[in-house]
Amino acid sequence: MAAAVDFERMWHDLEPVGRSASSGGYFRQPWLAAELELRDWFREAATARGLEVEEDPFGNLVAWWGPRADGAVLTGSHLDSVLDGGAFDGPLGVVSAFAALDLMRERGVAPTRPLGVAAFVEEEGSRFGRACLGSRLATGAAAWEHARELTDRDGVRLGDVIEGGTSTLLTGVDTYVELHVEQGRGLVDCDAAVGVGSGIWPHGRFRYDVTGRADHAGTTRMEDRADPMLTYATAALAANKQARLAGQRATFGRVEVRPNGTNAVPSAVTAWLDARAESDRALADLVAAIERQTCDRAGRDGTAVTVTAESVSGEVTFDVPLRDELAGTLGAPVLPTQAGHDAGVLQEAGIRSAMLFVRNPTGVSHSPAETAGVADCLAGVAALADVLTGLVG
Amino acid sequence: MAAAVDFERMWHDLEPVGRSASSGGYFRQPWLAAELELRDWFREAATARGLEVEEDPFGNLVAWWGPRADGAVLTGSHLDSVLDGGAFDGPLGVVSAFAALDLMRERGVAPTRPLGVAAFVEEEGSRFGRACLGSRLATGAAAWEHARELTDRDGVRLGDVIEGGTSTLLTGVDTYVELHVEQGRGLVDCDAAVGVGSGIWPHGRFRYDVTGRADHAGTTRMEDRADPMLTYATAALAANKQARLAGQRATFGRVEVRPNGTNAVPSAVTAWLDARAESDRALADLVAAIERQTCDRAGRDGTAVTVTAESVSGEVTFDVPLRDELAGTLGAPVLPTQAGHDAGVLQEAGIRSAMLFVRNPTGVSHSPAETAGVADCLAGVAALADVLTGLVG
Repeated sequence: MAAAVDFERMWHDLEPVGRSASSGGYFRQPWLAAELELRDWFREAATARGLEVEEDPFGNLVAWWGPRADGAVLTGSHLDSVLDGGAFDGPLGVVSAFAALDLMRERGVAPTRPLGVAAFVEEEGSRFGRACLGSRLATGAAAWEHARELTDRDGVRLGDVIEGGTSTLLTGVDTYVELHVEQGRGLVDCDAAVGVGSGIWPHGRFRYDVTGRADHAGTTRMEDRADPMLTYATAALAANKQARLAGQRATFGRVEVRPNGTNAVPSAVTAWLDARAESDRALADLVAAIERQTCDRAGRDGTAVTVTAESVSGEVTFDVPLRDELAGTLGAPVLPTQAGHDAGVLQEAGIRSAMLFVRNPTGVSHSPAETAGVADCLAGVAALADVLTGLVG
Repeated sequence: MAAAVDFERMWHDLEPVGRSASSGGYFRQPWLAAELELRDWFREAATARGLEVEEDPFGNLVAWWGPRADGAVLTGSHLDSVLDGGAFDGPLGVVSAFAALDLMRERGVAPTRPLGVAAFVEEEGSRFGRACLGSRLATGAAAWEHARELTDRDGVRLGDVIEGGTSTLLTGVDTYVELHVEQGRGLVDCDAAVGVGSGIWPHGRFRYDVTGRADHAGTTRMEDRADPMLTYATAALAANKQARLAGQRATFGRVEVRPNGTNAVPSAVTAWLDARAESDRALADLVAAIERQTCDRAGRDGTAVTVTAESVSGEVTFDVPLRDELAGTLGAPVLPTQAGHDAGVLQEAGIRSAMLFVRNPTGVSHSPAETAGVADCLAGVAALADVLTGLVG
């Protein structure tokens, strides 16, 4: 099929954008050079297909086949990456959406409803710290008056990067289908190239601010210190242990130390807990257990701990009739995900949503080693085209 | 005395240089703006006193009262600070040296030997990671061919900052007296404003490179991970526990995480251990115990650990006759220090060296909260003038 050629050409064009020469991983943070290049690419891909691009005041993009109107169907994903992430998480859904549209045209499908290819902005939250920020702003789940004050690691305010305002991008949209590389080995176990999502585990990000007292690392007796590094180390180990015991997930992947000098006891350590669990109740229990153990240790260290929930997303169940329809059409297995997605935000906002997953042979994601086979990616494109044809044809 | 006025004026001039508006701490890293301003100040202070400034190819400075010759006596300290450090660690010794010289002139002392005021560069190692780098290069304890390859956190090579070469700054110098704020509460316990140093504990810096595998923090099962953050957390806790048990010092104050994103299991964590002990044997035992416990944990985490000794300094005993003479002249207590100093490097290089400590009411150092009382500082100046008069008068 020509769509296969298109897919591989698009993939080839995107491959070098934002890739680190040393690790091979991707740095595609929103509104920085690499991501701006991806936006240009998106506009060119749309123009080459005669699609009109609509951008909302938050930077979310949709390329429309037929003018936006009630009953519109959306497909797509996001273009940004985590820091040093993989090539597939996000872009696979956008590239597959264009390729699916090509395939539908090849097959002569004449849509009876508008069909849009979407790229939501800052899905990973790797720059401003809020996952699915673009879709949350577009649906109203996040308020611009708060979001504009978010800052990146260099202290740049979101409100100084984009103008903001009110988004009408999703007005009239009643269905969203997001294709995404799987981020575990569920499809490997089922021996299937493509699967259908059932829902998203509840998850949250919690900022731990631990303060102590800076001191000379050589001259200050161990018993005279108030060292926040020790409290943090205990939190990191407690998170791992609690999640292991409960069969859930908890990770400290980001930490910032002040002043971060070899011969100074730190004055403060800030770290971020990423926690996920199979139910809202299990997540609350997990988070509470980690906080309790950290505070116990802080009492012994003479440090102070403040835990701030930066974002918490409740359990999401995708639209059940749509999910069953897709699974039936494709003969594909149904499986949950522990990762947050824009499809979860749209589902919560009342837009019936579904996800397709493409097999990931190693299950590795958020890593330069993330991968998917070409044949599986093309099976994903074909499945997406079938699903969209059923929705708009 | 006029020297008291001079001391306070000099202190007032230095106070704003490199001070953070938010923390009140100092950032005076070598060859960056604040430290260059301090160098200009040093030259002006020398010129105002009719002293000739000599700078070696490494940036070490000496202001000479009388041309350098055999039997020269040096006093001074350093101008750089740790990141977010205090005002006293270093500059107190330089300012007190100029003020002591003023006091000697006030008293009509006519030196029979040359007397120099020294400011050694990069004493803290806060930019290029090697403590006492300037004095080590000047004495030949560190080789320029290795040092030139050191890089700072931004990847800047030392060899691209300074030209390097061979230093003759210490040729003919036979005695060095360094005045320094105390970094513990030894003098508080003795109820004395000034003390004399007996020696320096052996100490070292060890870089821990822990590598694991980047993964998605949500989707990767706990049992499928190789998370270097856990290995690092164990090292930080082991260091503290071992040092506490042994009555020594061990600190992880600096850590760097890759990629340092909230929703990614890290691929690598690099951290620096600062370890000090009362004897070379105790230091070796301490460092070995921490490494062993870290490697045990790495085996369970599926991570790999490499430990590199970036610098190790053996035990230093200051010149005993000189120490006894000073303690006798001043009627001051004698006490050791756990902090490294240029005086230790010079002593090891065969220049008889001594230290004077000025009382620190809280014992806090390497912190914006580091302090010393004005009366104690002036007592330090008077003691230094007495000692130098005895040496050159």
